[in-house]
Amino acid sequence: MRFGLDVMGGDFAPGATIEGAVSALDSIGDGNRIVLLGPEDVIRHELAERGVESDRFDISHQPQCIAMDEKPVKALAEKPDSGIAAGFRLLAKGGLDAFASAGNSGAMLAGAVTHLKCIPGVIRPCTCACVPQEEGDAYSVLLDVGTTPDAKPEVMVQFAVIGSLYAQYLLGHANPRVCLMNVGTEDGKGNLQCQTVFPLLKECPHINFTGNMEPREIFKNRADVMVTDGFVGNILLKEVETFYRLMQKRGISDPLFDRMNYEIYGGSPILGVNAPVILGHGISSPLAIRNMLLQTKRMCELGLTQALRKLFADYVSESES
Amino acid sequence: MRFGLDVMGGDFAPGATIEGAVSALDSIGDGNRIVLLGPEDVIRHELAERGVESDRFDISHQPQCIAMDEKPVKALAEKPDSGIAAGFRLLAKGGLDAFASAGNSGAMLAGAVTHLKCIPGVIRPCTCACVPQEEGDAYSVLLDVGTTPDAKPEVMVQFAVIGSLYAQYLLGHANPRVCLMNVGTEDGKGNLQCQTVFPLLKECPHINFTGNMEPREIFKNRADVMVTDGFVGNILLKEVETFYRLMQKRGISDPLFDRMNYEIYGGSPILGVNAPVILGHGISSPLAIRNMLLQTKRMCELGLTQALRKLFADYVSESES
Repeated sequence: MRFGLDVMGGDFAPGATIEGAVSALDSIGDGNRIVLLGPEDVIRHELAERGVESDRFDISHQPQCIAMDEKPVKALAEKPDSGIAAGFRLLAKGGLDAFASAGNSGAMLAGAVTHLKCIPGVIRPCTCACVPQEEGDAYSVLLDVGTTPDAKPEVMVQFAVIGSLYAQYLLGHANPRVCLMNVGTEDGKGNLQCQTVFPLLKECPHINFTGNMEPREIFKNRADVMVTDGFVGNILLKEVETFYRLMQKRGISDPLFDRMNYEIYGGSPILGVNAPVILGHGISSPLAIRNMLLQTKRMCELGLTQALRKLFADYVSESES
Repeated sequence: MRFGLDVMGGDFAPGATIEGAVSALDSIGDGNRIVLLGPEDVIRHELAERGVESDRFDISHQPQCIAMDEKPVKALAEKPDSGIAAGFRLLAKGGLDAFASAGNSGAMLAGAVTHLKCIPGVIRPCTCACVPQEEGDAYSVLLDVGTTPDAKPEVMVQFAVIGSLYAQYLLGHANPRVCLMNVGTEDGKGNLQCQTVFPLLKECPHINFTGNMEPREIFKNRADVMVTDGFVGNILLKEVETFYRLMQKRGISDPLFDRMNYEIYGGSPILGVNAPVILGHGISSPLAIRNMLLQTKRMCELGLTQALRKLFADYVSESES
């Protein structure tokens, strides 16, 4: 398998990306290759500096670079020879099996939707984050964490379906418990969106819906899949990250807090498109890049995209019948 | 001045409420009285148990009690002799100067709107919370934290105006900086609600709007007033409370985290109605009840309600001119 990495993506690129790619080599598996997409001279220089032979990687020379603050669609159109644009082109044609970048998240999302398209039946893609749970070492999946801020009710139901499959395949939860993130646990609570989504989740045959949950249960092992719209999910995630930062700043180490570190999972997958794509944090460190690549590998090995395609094929045929 | 307290309100009532009221006596001020609303025998018993003379309080005998999970409007109608129903009746007639309860929050809100009515010009009331800031001992105000989950843009602008006055009067911020809570700091970011509210906040002459902020800045002294709708605000607040709980559980003490303790401010004022009302946390301890009463006193002394009435009178006459 071939995993593409956007070398120029992220605040600390290309140093952090190359460093992370090198450190992932030992775990990437025999026969698998990391494809470094970026300016060839930069890549060769960074590898040489680390005393790493360049033939341990595949190099795809892409001289252009999309900056973090560029307008996504415009940048993709004007910079076809950037790591992000080329990554999606290759992925769509089968030249890559997965693609990861810690670069411009808007461009990543636009690229995924334009080049890969949504899986038939999926209305909108979503991104998810893994939230550590108290007691034990389990993680739950929170989604959407930013892709779709004003998610329609039927889109939120799909988040629940997609999240359930992710929790099964990537986090090992059999029959994952799905909850709707809300401001109260009673049925019928919340804003208009939650009130509309609740009965739809209750009726959905593809998930194990167990009701509303509150943010105070976010670490309490109440749910394996926590469903919310992209605005609220992003707010929740950024608040978790804030607390992690405060702990780090104070040098406080703790089994729960330490697992809030985004570097552990390394990135948020963009789910619902036709190939595995992972979006890294802008501030990705070498460790985050390494784990982003290994998560990419696991998504490929476990066949998450194929499973989503199969599930949504059933989904579509059901709603047509 | 006369401050009403709902004796039966809260998970640990009447023990915690009476204990809190007793501990507030030393700071409530000469000539001011705490009016205990609840079943007289219960009140006298709880006071006697603590060796406190009952004439240090005014007692308003209210034999009924609204439970935490009762339907607010129905409960208020069916239990006119409950602490909450009687509290609002007295407050509306001038028999009290302020009213506080850690009881059924829906009933508190319904009672405030029904008996006190909104200040002329105020579309919807709101509740606020004080969020401690890193560096120094400042607090910022976050609102709305639960009253209005699907706030219309013009309502959110009023939250900004009301929050600014609260920050000035209660937190001592001159010319408070107002930010819109969002998922990105650039202009035009966010969900449809934020995109619509942003230009309205920019144009509003009554506030010092300084742009969007992200949850990661919530403790970073970016804003004195953080504006959001009741759904997102409640989510944010509950996540802060969650972290406080985790710190407590671990015995971690820290100048910032310790100030996340809701007991310090004791309750959330319901702002925008015609008299001072404070809503306590369901799990209020005696310390929380004490501080809720002292916050009530400060709101009265500082004349927040009068200031809001004056501001909204200008507001109304402007929009009519």
